[in-house]
Amino acid sequence: MNTQYPIIVALDKPDESLARSVVGNLCGRVSGFKLGLPLLLGIGLQGVRQLRSLCREGIWIADLKAADVFHVLKLTYELVSDIADYIIAHAFIGYRGALEALPPSRLILVASMSHEGSREVIDKCQTLVAKVVDSIRPWGIVAPATRPEVIRYFRSLLGKRTKILSPGIGVQGARPGSAICAGADYEIVGRSIVEAPSPIEAFETIHREAVKVISKCRSVI
Amino acid sequence: MNTQYPIIVALDKPDESLARSVVGNLCGRVSGFKLGLPLLLGIGLQGVRQLRSLCREGIWIADLKAADVFHVLKLTYELVSDIADYIIAHAFIGYRGALEALPPSRLILVASMSHEGSREVIDKCQTLVAKVVDSIRPWGIVAPATRPEVIRYFRSLLGKRTKILSPGIGVQGARPGSAICAGADYEIVGRSIVEAPSPIEAFETIHREAVKVISKCRSVI
Repeated sequence: MNTQYPIIVALDKPDESLARSVVGNLCGRVSGFKLGLPLLLGIGLQGVRQLRSLCREGIWIADLKAADVFHVLKLTYELVSDIADYIIAHAFIGYRGALEALPPSRLILVASMSHEGSREVIDKCQTLVAKVVDSIRPWGIVAPATRPEVIRYFRSLLGKRTKILSPGIGVQGARPGSAICAGADYEIVGRSIVEAPSPIEAFETIHREAVKVISKCRSVI
Repeated sequence: MNTQYPIIVALDKPDESLARSVVGNLCGRVSGFKLGLPLLLGIGLQGVRQLRSLCREGIWIADLKAADVFHVLKLTYELVSDIADYIIAHAFIGYRGALEALPPSRLILVASMSHEGSREVIDKCQTLVAKVVDSIRPWGIVAPATRPEVIRYFRSLLGKRTKILSPGIGVQGARPGSAICAGADYEIVGRSIVEAPSPIEAFETIHREAVKVISKCRSVI
């Protein structure tokens, strides 16, 4: 697995052959794969099981952005716990009667989002969301590469033990490597790789740029 | 379809034969069915298609509690738009770059939740969430039967055009009929019916109680 640039590839499109080709080609070269809800629904749990059998390495994440009450979260977790190492849920739903259904050691909480509408509610409630994250101390959190100040805020709040995963690289505007420089542990890249004419070439280009950016910011420190 | 007591049955458990039996027995007697994420993932989209073929009546809702960015919401919607009349998403994620991916006429927004953890973040941000709901004006919203004052708040904010769907009846503590009395259009009942030894008998008991409660509160008005 590549440690120079810890990158997780987001697979969202419900296209089984595309997903198989990306996983087959990038297995061992990336830190893991994040499986979005459309992929999970579209190719089904059996399809995901077969996908994972193509690559036993790295981190596999079920990105359900789960945001429901206890009994629904529990049933959902039971369905994906054998095919993914971690599950993504929203911190904003709170702990009691909701997130307490999920084991913190296998949980990644959305602390902030990368789109513009995140300013309408989530960002304005950041202190409350952070309180939920801080009390649960999940394995990891999601904080957007498009806003490095949010990454820095959560890093200083949570210390080094909690992993920070940052989407928003590429199509959404952030430069490869920039979230790592701001303190993230992994960058999540989706469409810039998966929807490129050649996903491998796209990966290599992003990888080169990220390594350059990261070595530059690390030399400054 | 029963109009005395507008009830939607929530199917969450990923148990295909149970779901088929409940749908087969209650089709035409209830206002519709709400399909939770565990059911959708567990029996797959093909299973859901077959489930719907058992009952062409009523409202069918894909309860994904969707809470992701534009391109993921769009892909998700495309997968369920032929098997459900409406999709449930969280108002919390905001409009720009997120909820604008979904057609308001087929959208139900979660405005508030029924569990205790809802007080940790969502309830404290209710004014901001309400602003998102008010600007989108979706077909319907979800507001919990366990807190009738929230139902009344959204009814007075949105007027009569927006449907209010209320979970929280039965296992979660609210009395059948109480949300309708507070201004909701539909009550959502899940486990009290689906997990009862006899779902039909459970439905009939709940129905009788609701009709009693509703006729009492209506006679007061």
